[in-house]
Order: sequence, then C-alpha cells, then structure tokens
Amino acid sequence: MQDEVLNKIMKPKSIAVIGASTKPKTIGSEIMQRLRDYKFSGNIYPVNPKGGIIEGFQAYTNIEEVPGDVDLAVIVVNAKFVLDTIDQCHRKGIKGLVIITAGFKETGKEGAEVEKQLLAKVKEYGMRCVGPNCLGVLNTHPDVTMDATFAESLPIRGDIGFVSQSGALGGGILNILKDLNLGFAQFVSIGNQADINAETMLEYWENDDDVKQILLYMESIQNPANFRKLASRITKKKPILALKAGRSAAGASAASSHTGSLAGADKAAAALLKQSGVIREFSLKNLFANAKAFSNCPIPKGNRVAIITNSGGPGIMATDAICESGMQMAKITDETKEKLRSFLPSAASVKNPIDMIASAPIEHYQQTLETVIKDENVDMIVVIYLPFLGLKDIDVAEAIMKIKAQNPEKPIVGVFMTTSDFFTKISNMEVNMPFYMYAEEAAEALTRLDEQRQWMEKPLGKVPCYDVDKNKVCDIIKKSISEGRDQLTTLESIDVLQAYGIRACKYGLATNIDEVVNLGNSIGYPVVMKMTSKTTSHKTDVGGVVVNIRSEEQLRNEYNALLKRLEEKGLLEGLEGVIIQEMVKGNREMVCGIATDPQYGPMMMFGLGGVFVEALKDVTFRIAPLTDTDAQEMVKSVKAYKLLQGARGTTPAQISQIEETLLRLSQLVNDFKFIDELDINPLLISEKTGEGIAVDGRIKVRMNEAQEALKDCLTCAGACK
Amino acid sequence: MQDEVLNKIMKPKSIAVIGASTKPKTIGSEIMQRLRDYKFSGNIYPVNPKGGIIEGFQAYTNIEEVPGDVDLAVIVVNAKFVLDTIDQCHRKGIKGLVIITAGFKETGKEGAEVEKQLLAKVKEYGMRCVGPNCLGVLNTHPDVTMDATFAESLPIRGDIGFVSQSGALGGGILNILKDLNLGFAQFVSIGNQADINAETMLEYWENDDDVKQILLYMESIQNPANFRKLASRITKKKPILALKAGRSAAGASAASSHTGSLAGADKAAAALLKQSGVIREFSLKNLFANAKAFSNCPIPKGNRVAIITNSGGPGIMATDAICESGMQMAKITDETKEKLRSFLPSAASVKNPIDMIASAPIEHYQQTLETVIKDENVDMIVVIYLPFLGLKDIDVAEAIMKIKAQNPEKPIVGVFMTTSDFFTKISNMEVNMPFYMYAEEAAEALTRLDEQRQWMEKPLGKVPCYDVDKNKVCDIIKKSISEGRDQLTTLESIDVLQAYGIRACKYGLATNIDEVVNLGNSIGYPVVMKMTSKTTSHKTDVGGVVVNIRSEEQLRNEYNALLKRLEEKGLLEGLEGVIIQEMVKGNREMVCGIATDPQYGPMMMFGLGGVFVEALKDVTFRIAPLTDTDAQEMVKSVKAYKLLQGARGTTPAQISQIEETLLRLSQLVNDFKFIDELDINPLLISEKTGEGIAVDGRIKVRMNEAQEALKDCLTCAGACK
Repeated sequence: MQDEVLNKIMKPKSIAVIGASTKPKTIGSEIMQRLRDYKFSGNIYPVNPKGGIIEGFQAYTNIEEVPGDVDLAVIVVNAKFVLDTIDQCHRKGIKGLVIITAGFKETGKEGAEVEKQLLAKVKEYGMRCVGPNCLGVLNTHPDVTMDATFAESLPIRGDIGFVSQSGALGGGILNILKDLNLGFAQFVSIGNQADINAETMLEYWENDDDVKQILLYMESIQNPANFRKLASRITKKKPILALKAGRSAAGASAASSHTGSLAGADKAAAALLKQSGVIREFSLKNLFANAKAFSNCPIPKGNRVAIITNSGGPGIMATDAICESGMQMAKITDETKEKLRSFLPSAASVKNPIDMIASAPIEHYQQTLETVIKDENVDMIVVIYLPFLGLKDIDVAEAIMKIKAQNPEKPIVGVFMTTSDFFTKISNMEVNMPFYMYAEEAAEALTRLDEQRQWMEKPLGKVPCYDVDKNKVCDIIKKSISEGRDQLTTLESIDVLQAYGIRACKYGLATNIDEVVNLGNSIGYPVVMKMTSKTTSHKTDVGGVVVNIRSEEQLRNEYNALLKRLEEKGLLEGLEGVIIQEMVKGNREMVCGIATDPQYGPMMMFGLGGVFVEALKDVTFRIAPLTDTDAQEMVKSVKAYKLLQGARGTTPAQISQIEETLLRLSQLVNDFKFIDELDINPLLISEKTGEGIAVDGRIKVRMNEAQEALKDCLTCAGACK
Repeated sequence: MQDEVLNKIMKPKSIAVIGASTKPKTIGSEIMQRLRDYKFSGNIYPVNPKGGIIEGFQAYTNIEEVPGDVDLAVIVVNAKFVLDTIDQCHRKGIKGLVIITAGFKETGKEGAEVEKQLLAKVKEYGMRCVGPNCLGVLNTHPDVTMDATFAESLPIRGDIGFVSQSGALGGGILNILKDLNLGFAQFVSIGNQADINAETMLEYWENDDDVKQILLYMESIQNPANFRKLASRITKKKPILALKAGRSAAGASAASSHTGSLAGADKAAAALLKQSGVIREFSLKNLFANAKAFSNCPIPKGNRVAIITNSGGPGIMATDAICESGMQMAKITDETKEKLRSFLPSAASVKNPIDMIASAPIEHYQQTLETVIKDENVDMIVVIYLPFLGLKDIDVAEAIMKIKAQNPEKPIVGVFMTTSDFFTKISNMEVNMPFYMYAEEAAEALTRLDEQRQWMEKPLGKVPCYDVDKNKVCDIIKKSISEGRDQLTTLESIDVLQAYGIRACKYGLATNIDEVVNLGNSIGYPVVMKMTSKTTSHKTDVGGVVVNIRSEEQLRNEYNALLKRLEEKGLLEGLEGVIIQEMVKGNREMVCGIATDPQYGPMMMFGLGGVFVEALKDVTFRIAPLTDTDAQEMVKSVKAYKLLQGARGTTPAQISQIEETLLRLSQLVNDFKFIDELDINPLLISEKTGEGIAVDGRIKVRMNEAQEALKDCLTCAGACK
C-alpha cells in the first residue's frame, strides 16, 4: 500500500509540473527541459496560470484542468502557494508530490510551522511527499526514464539508489557520477524530509531488483532505531554506503543551521552505522570510488589479494595499501608459479606481487591474469598498468575485461597509471570492472567489498534476555528519587548492578563483631574494612580503612583495634558500622557504561579504564540494545583486548563473562529508559579468576522521566520481553 | 666542483646518445625523439655503429668520432658494452653519464659485481653518473629544454624537482603530472643509484632557484644520516614531499627484490623524515595533490581557515575535514560579518563556513572573497563551487583567480564539484591557485602548507652534550664482555645509566647490619630489601624480598628477621648479602629505550610502558642523536603525555627531566655505538617528585664491535664532542 503511493512518485505514468515556466534559467523551466530531454515515458502536463506552450507541451492554467490522470505533481510554485496547491492536487486525485520549493523549516520557526501544516495535509490526503526544499527525483529504468530534477546534466543508467539530504550537493553529485561512468537506477533528493526520508527509501528499495546498491548522503538520521532495524536487514541483501557529514563539532553546528535538523553526536552515528552493516565513507570521493567497485564486482569469497603489475614501484605501493587495510597478500600456489615461469621472462617475479617487468606485452597480461584467476589461494586481483613503449592502455583494459567476462566470480580491479584520456574513454564505454588511477584507491575498494563479505557472513546477532530482579531496581531508584537524588550512591549503584546479575564487588555493612566475622567469612578473604561514621569524615586519618585482611583472625583483630583507636580518640559514638568489602586484586582496569545521546538514545561504552580512560581513549561505542555479536565485537575491538587475553603472564580474562556484563547493562538501560548515565569504572579484571568485577559504580537518572515511569508500579513487574 | 659535473648532466650544452637507434619502439629511438621533440637547446649526437641519420641528426659510429665537445652521454647500449662505453666516454673527455641500460644490481650478484666496476670507473674518471637501470633526466628551463627520457609524453614547465627511484613509475608520473597541470623544473630517475642518489639531488637543488619544491619517490634511503643532515637544512628553505614505499613487511620484501637495495624498517624511515622536516605522503595521489598546493600557494601565517560556499553540504564536509586535520575554523570578525550581511541575502550564513546559498551569483563570490581575504582572523581560504542554474564553473574560477592575483599573501584553494571538463580546461590554463574536486583534498593540501609553516617556524634544535662518566661505562662493558656476556646485568645496566646522569633507582649491596643501615639511611626510606644468595633461587619463598621498609628501625628488624629465617632453614651459608634499593612509588609506567635498525642505526623509543607497551603501542620513535626539540616532541607526541601532565590528581611529571633522560640516552648510544639494545622499562614516574626514574634496565652490546672498540683504551677518554 505504501509502496503503491511511492510508485506514483518513483514510477509515475504521468507528471504535472506545477509552476512550469518559459523563463530561462528558472527551476520551472529547467525541470520541464529535463523531463523532455530525458524522454519521460509518460504524459507531461505543465501547469502555469498563463497557460500556453511550455517546452513543447500544452500548459494548463490550473492542475484541476489537466485532462488525464496525474500520478505525480512536481511543485515549484512560490512557498506561499504550496499549501493551496496541495489542496488542488488532492481534488485532482493526485497522491504523489515532489515539492522543490524552498522556504520552509530551513528558514526558521515560521517556515517550520508551515511545513507542519504541509505534512498534515499530506497525511490527511493519503499522499506521500518528497521535499520540500529539494532537487527532485529521477528514475532511469527504461519503462520510466524520468529526470524530474534541475541538475546540470542528464543521468546515466546504472544500479545505484541514491538519497541525498543536500539539494545543491545532489546536483554536483549527478555531474560527478556521470564523469565516473557510474549510473543511477533511482535518485531522491529528500530536502527537508518532511515526509519521505532515507528510511522510507531504504524500505522502498529493499526488494527493488533494479537498485543493487544504496548510497546515502546524510547530515542527520531521523529515527535511529528504525534506521538500524531496516538497514541491518537490507545490508544482508545489498550494500549500503553512507557519507554522514557533520562529524566535527564545528561541522555539526554547520549541519544544524543548514537543514534545521539536529545532528547527533558522531560517535553515536558511527556506532549505529556499524551495527547496521552500513559501510561508512568519509568523503564523496571515496563514496563514489567504492560504489564503482560494488557496481562492477561480485562479493569476494575471502580477503586474499593477488597483484599483477608491469612495474615494481606501484606493486610495492599496492602491497603497502593492501596490508595496511587489513587484507592479505595471497600466497600464490607452486602450480601457479610454475605456470607463470613458463612464459614470463626470468627477470620477472612470480611471487605476489607478480612483476611481469616493464616490457610485458599484452599477451603476458592475458596469460598471467588467466593463470592467477584460477589460483584457489586468490580471492581478488589487482591488475596494474604503466605505460611502456607503445603498449596501449585501452588495449590492455579491453584484454583484461574480456577475461573478466569469462571469469565473473572473482573481483578484478585495474590500476592504470596513465593519462586522463584513458578514463574519459572508459567513461564512455561499457565496462565490467572498475579502473582507478592509483593503487591506494583500488586497495580501498577491495577492502569495502571485503567488509561487505564479512558483514554478510556474520550472524545478525540476538538481544538476549536474562532473568533479573527488576523489582529490586525499581525499589532502589524509587527510594533515591523520593529523597530528591537523581544520582544513586555507590552502594545503591552496586545493588542495581547485582540485581541485574552483574558481578560487582561483594560487600555488606556490619555493626558488631559477629556480623563483621560473618560477612568476612561469607565474602571470602582477603577483604577490605571501611568504617562509616557520621562524625568522622577523614576515615584514613584514624586508620578507618584497612586493606588486605587475609583471615578471620586478622579481621577480628583489626576490628577490635579500630574500636580501640576510636575509643581513645573519643570518636566511637559517631560510628555507624563498618563496610566489609571483597578485595579484588588485579592491575587491569576496564571501564564500561552508558551515555545518552539526545537523538540516538542510550549508547554503551567499553574500553580501558582507570587513569587511562581519558588520556588513551581506548574505548568503543555501540547503540543499545546490544546483540550478542555487538558485545563480542565491542570487547574485541579495543586495543586493551590483548591485555584481556593475558599478555605478560597475567590471568586471561573471562571474555564471555565480560560480554555478558555488557549485555546485562544493555538490558538494564532498556528496561529503565530513564537511566541517563551509568559508569562502571573500574571494571577490575580479577587476577585470581579473570572475572570482570564492578568495583565502583555510578548511576544517574532523569528525574522527571523516572518519577513518571515509576509512578505506576505496574511498570516494575516482569522483565524484558 | 661537484656541482660543475652535475651541471653537465642537468644543464648540458651537448648530448650524445650512445645506442641511438632508428628502430621504432626501442629506447634508443624514443630518447632521440624526445630530445628532438622537446627541442633540446644544445647539440645532439646520436652514436650507432651503423652511422647514418637518426631522427634527422647525423649519427657517429663511435663516441670518439663526435666532432664537438660532449657534456652528457646518455647510454642505452646492451649491458655488456657499458664498461667499454664508459672508457670511450672518458677518452672523449665526457664527465656526465646517464646510463639507461638495465641488467646490473637488480638482476643479482653478477650484475652487482659489474655495477661495482662501473662505479669504480666513474669515480676514477672524475665522472658523475645517473642510473644504471633508469628512465633518464629532464630539465624544462628555457635555456636547457632537455627531455632525455623515454616516457610517453613531453613534460610541462614548472617548479618541481622530482627524484624517482622507480623507472617505470617515473614514466607514469610524467603522464599524470601533465594531466594535473603540474610542471617540472627538473626530473631525475635515479634507478639503481650507483652514484647519484636522492641526497645528491637534494644538495644540487638546495640553491637552485628554478626548483621551488622537491618531490621524492623512494623505496630506500641510502645514507640516512646524510639525508637527515641535508634535508633538515633544505626544508627550512623549500618544501620536500616524499613518498616512501615499502611500508608493510610484505611491501618491504617486494621493495628489496625490486631494487636490490635494503628497505629499512618503516618506523625508522618515518622518524627520519619527520626529524628532517620532510612531508611524508602515503600515495602518489596525495603527493601530487599537495604539490599542486605548494606550487600555487604561499606558506600561510597560521592555521585558521575560512570556507566560502554556495552549498551547505560541501561546507559541512569541508568543516569536518579541516577540524579533523587539526587546523582551526577561523573566527570571522564582526566587521567582516557586517560587511557580508550588507550584500548577501538573509538566508545566507555569515558564520564560518560562509554559506552564500545556492543562488549566489558570481558577484557574491567576488565580494565575499575580497571581504574575507582582508579578515585578520583568516589565514587560509577554501572557496567551494557547486553548479547552479547556469552559473559557469570557469567564470567563477577566473573571477577568484583575479582576486587571488591582487592578494597573493594568503593561500586560496578552490573546491569545484563540477564535471571533469572543468579540470581539463584549467589544466590547459595558467592558474595561480589549486583547484580540487573534493573538500577533503583541499583540507589536506592546506594541512600540508601548515605543516611546512610549523616546521619553518620551529628552531632546528641542538644535540646537547652532558658531562658524563664515560670511563665508568667503558669499564662496566669491558668487564661484561671479558666474561663473555653481551647482555649486562640489571645492576650493571643501572650503573651505566647513572654514569650518564640518568636518574635510576638507587641501590647498594650490604653484607652486614652496619652496611645495611648506612645504605638505607643514604638512599632514604622507604626501601626494598632483596637477598642475594648462591644457593637460594626462589627468594620470595623464604621471604627474601621485603618491600616498603619505612624506617631504620624497621630495616634493622627486617634484616635480623631474615637472617633468623635463613638460619632456621639452614640457608644462611649461601647468603652473599642483601640489596637495599630505593622504593619508587607511582602508577605511571613509561618506557624508553634504543633499538638498532640495520640501515638507520640507533633509534630511540619513548612511550607508555609496563604491561601496556605491546597492547597499546602508545610509543614514538626518533633516530639518534636526538636534538632538544626532538626530545620535546617525543614526550609530547604520545597519548600518555596527558597522564604525565598530571591527569586525575596525580603529581605532574617533570617533563624536562624526562626529556633530559632521552637526551642522555641518546648521548650514551652515540658514544658507544656498539650498544645494540637498551630498555628502561619501566621509567616510573615518582608520585612524590614527578621524576622519571629508571627502575629496571637492560643493555645489550654487539660483542665483536664492542671488543674492537674497547681494545684500544683511548676510545674511552673524553666525552662527546
């Protein structure tokens, strides 16, 4: 049903251009020209109060006068007429709108108000709408051939679905992609995304076979949770490459003034994209260069790359780039080597990189590629060409494309260090593999193919549900907020963690010698004893903290000695008792916790803790809720993972127990959405058992939300489902 | 004198091509064509046993028959004739050789032997020689106009001096640079660099005003110390940009098989280039893109960048890229803002990035740029253009170039997201500023300009000379090697460090109670007591290590208790004594040390130590000897610097004392060049004083070298000079 209305926008049979114009260099004129020049397959109805003929089409003075059915109205009238125009479209029975007109949310409060009314009408009338404040839409499918944009150049046919959040940028992109011989299936400039946004298009393209890869230019993500749900499903079928701009604080502030939408913190965006299987690019250049690879290469079976070159230098540079991207240099089999030696000159190197030397004729390129492509140790191939004494770049390219056509199963990319004439030539040809000027570009493209392979091979992961004591957490938080505290005490925080099955430092409060000894025995030695007193604030000055108590006998002695010391100093009266606490020994301090991003919601952190957390920033982030694979990846992705594995004779940490700690924390924050901050620092790795133990905890809630949520005690019953 | 002979190669008045040929697609034919087509300003003498006319020039059957003087012989004969040809050249009085011919060191041992003989002849005859196994040389100066290469295309005139270690790559580079409208002053393909290498050319170009920047493609650095000396001097006058290939282990192995030269460890190369002020690039693409900036921009006065754009998206992307490169977004003055507001539409943003909005006409580009260029808070400017309704890219480019011509003092770069036609057009024009397609490329180029600024502003630094006890170190090492040990004991290592004034853990050996007490008192409490015994290997099992002894009284008691324990266990007899050692308290463990790279020599390391050293790799390297600025930069460049500054309430470390530690170590390894490895791990930061204290040390020498050096006791006298 939704798709049916979207089809009226993306695959219309008839288009009305409301605000079409004969005046050159106006949008109303440019769009008419594009529709005509790109030979839209259906009917085109220009609408202009003056009527007449526009770009060869009969114009109508009002949309309601148009004789036939209209699927899509492209609206370019002045902003103040847009609401009325929508009403007219409704009366005409139009369901699809592309509102090019600017002057809405992006201009401030008043504009935002009008945009709200616009959206209300669209919803009321059962319409869908692209824009306002956008460049338009296009679809290159032969049944449609619609260019309803006002970009400089006409699109070329291809397999990319492109969503751009920036209008002007969209126009630049259309130009560049044409240069790169990179074609669209469909393109949507979402503008202010009042109705249709990137998520709408993701879902629309999920099962559209004409769109084989999706490219996104985004300055914000409207509904992160929905984006994650959709993208993580779709990326299992086709790659999504995204450029998310507004990464720096300064960039983000420019982003919010630009589109009127709030740009979320970049850490959160990075985590979200990673968890969704979206390949993140950091420049348009890379976005396009890598899309070129996805357009022309199968997903590889592994990450082992062979390099074939006629020049040593570029072979070395390609090797550097491949090794630095985490791929592997393929180990060429002896059989392949032998075969290569049978026709290559003795000065050639048959090890990877395979250097055929500068004088290699075209036949050596062919024979070498044909031989290497069959090597079972090779997953992907880079073919490097440098000009040498009359060997023509285009001849070499054609020869290897022929071989590629017969061997479609492995990615092959060309690195042709030649003149730009060559790239102009191939941008006007049918090609079946990507060509780059530089080895580093090729290596990066292969890395992206390999990322996609890894993502597709990886299980999607599940959000586990542990048996926890939710009611206890309710009670603790209720007590805290009833006392006006939005921040829990350390002991309350530890209790909350324990209620969720998180291994925390054991402790208890004792007020007499029997309780002290019982606690010590039940916790297990060594323990720490800390006095708690209303009158003595400097506990250590009176010997109020004793560490490393190793036995019941020592504990008795220390307790009695403490009482004696306090008595001598006249401080016994204020004593409330002593906390007996498990003493965890270990020198590996990790940190984990939760921060809340205003747009992305709760975000989990894990990494190296203690004094190192700020200086070394060896931490990683993921959006909650975590899946089991998320938790595994978090633990593995920090450098300190090597320490956890047991470097330098330390006890290997219980990795799965640490993963579970993260998953339980994720469940906690999902159950209690009003938790604003949570820190476990340190999560000490016990040298004895390798467990991660929460030694200190800090939890802060959003007071109003917590009060609201806990008012009705029913919310406390049951656990996550 | 050296320059005179080099002039005969780079600025010859006459050239003989020995091995010139009429056969098409041979090097002997191609080089003749290039010399002719590029219109070499002097005489051209082809030499071929058959004589006749080659490319329109009278050929001679032998070099000795050539009638006039010959400055430069370009040799392309078969490898087996090269030595004889050199003899003939000598008889003809030729001093300059470019040996294109391959088949020497790169083919193996035999070839290397012939190359040795070749070099011997060159030296004997007072010649200089480029190659063998190279692409040739060129000089575009109007007085010379020499293209003595066999690359595909003729060069264009420019200000770059380029040295390429790869022949075939050199050819590709010539093509690409032509595309990029990036011209050479001179180009040298050094090939096997038997005689002339990158260092020769650096020195040659140092005072050649025709060469304004130097680009290097290197797979190895022949004489690192000499390279450092030259480059660090020359980079103060003109930028040097280097692409050093063979970074990965796999790449390095490809490098050594390719050029037959040993590729040094990449860490060492990175340190060397940094200390020499050389800008390191990691791809040809960046090398060229950034060279374009140096060709067309002055060195900026600071790092504050203003962005002028007609589209928000690219403005955001540029902001991201600039912030991520460590530059600053300029704070536009109120005066500038006011002026901008006077002519820009209200929807425009006059904050940086300055968004003139999509409809900006060419006049807004002009007025905005003219206004911003005068802002005293702006050091560099990025101008972004996206196509919009008929505004022509080339018109905008010409308009801003006009303004740039009138305001040459600040770097201006263009980001033109338009078709490749534009770039083809400007590649055939005279331009006075660089244009890029993408914001990230522009940001990177500005970053390089800023790096050069920082380097030029920074003092070159001095290698200090401390007063040290060199003789003591001699004696310690002599003793060790006389006992057949190439590795010093911990105590010997500590003694060596102390002899060089490095703050190490104080200690001493005591054999009776008086000595024990004296030591304790002189070291200062707390101390550690460790027994040393010939019969007891597991010291801790018998309580042989006691830490945190806080007073003379406690020391007496512990010593007596130890003796008693040992007596009871019958272990007293083996006791040699106890080591009384300073107990350093602190939880910040740094590491510093020296590793020896077979090619680059001793290399210093500094960073985060303890259990973290391998996992976190927060360390930095510099080649010894260190200057004071090197030491300062080393300490500042690790992430752990924040910890040293006193994060989280710790005592701020004595930064200058740590720098001095590194400088003294550098002096040590410079005085004793046979020290192969040296580790101080940890260099503990005292919580009490903030000093870095060597708690553990390890020194290893190269036995044979040490024996040789210390044989003659004279080498021990005196300190560094």
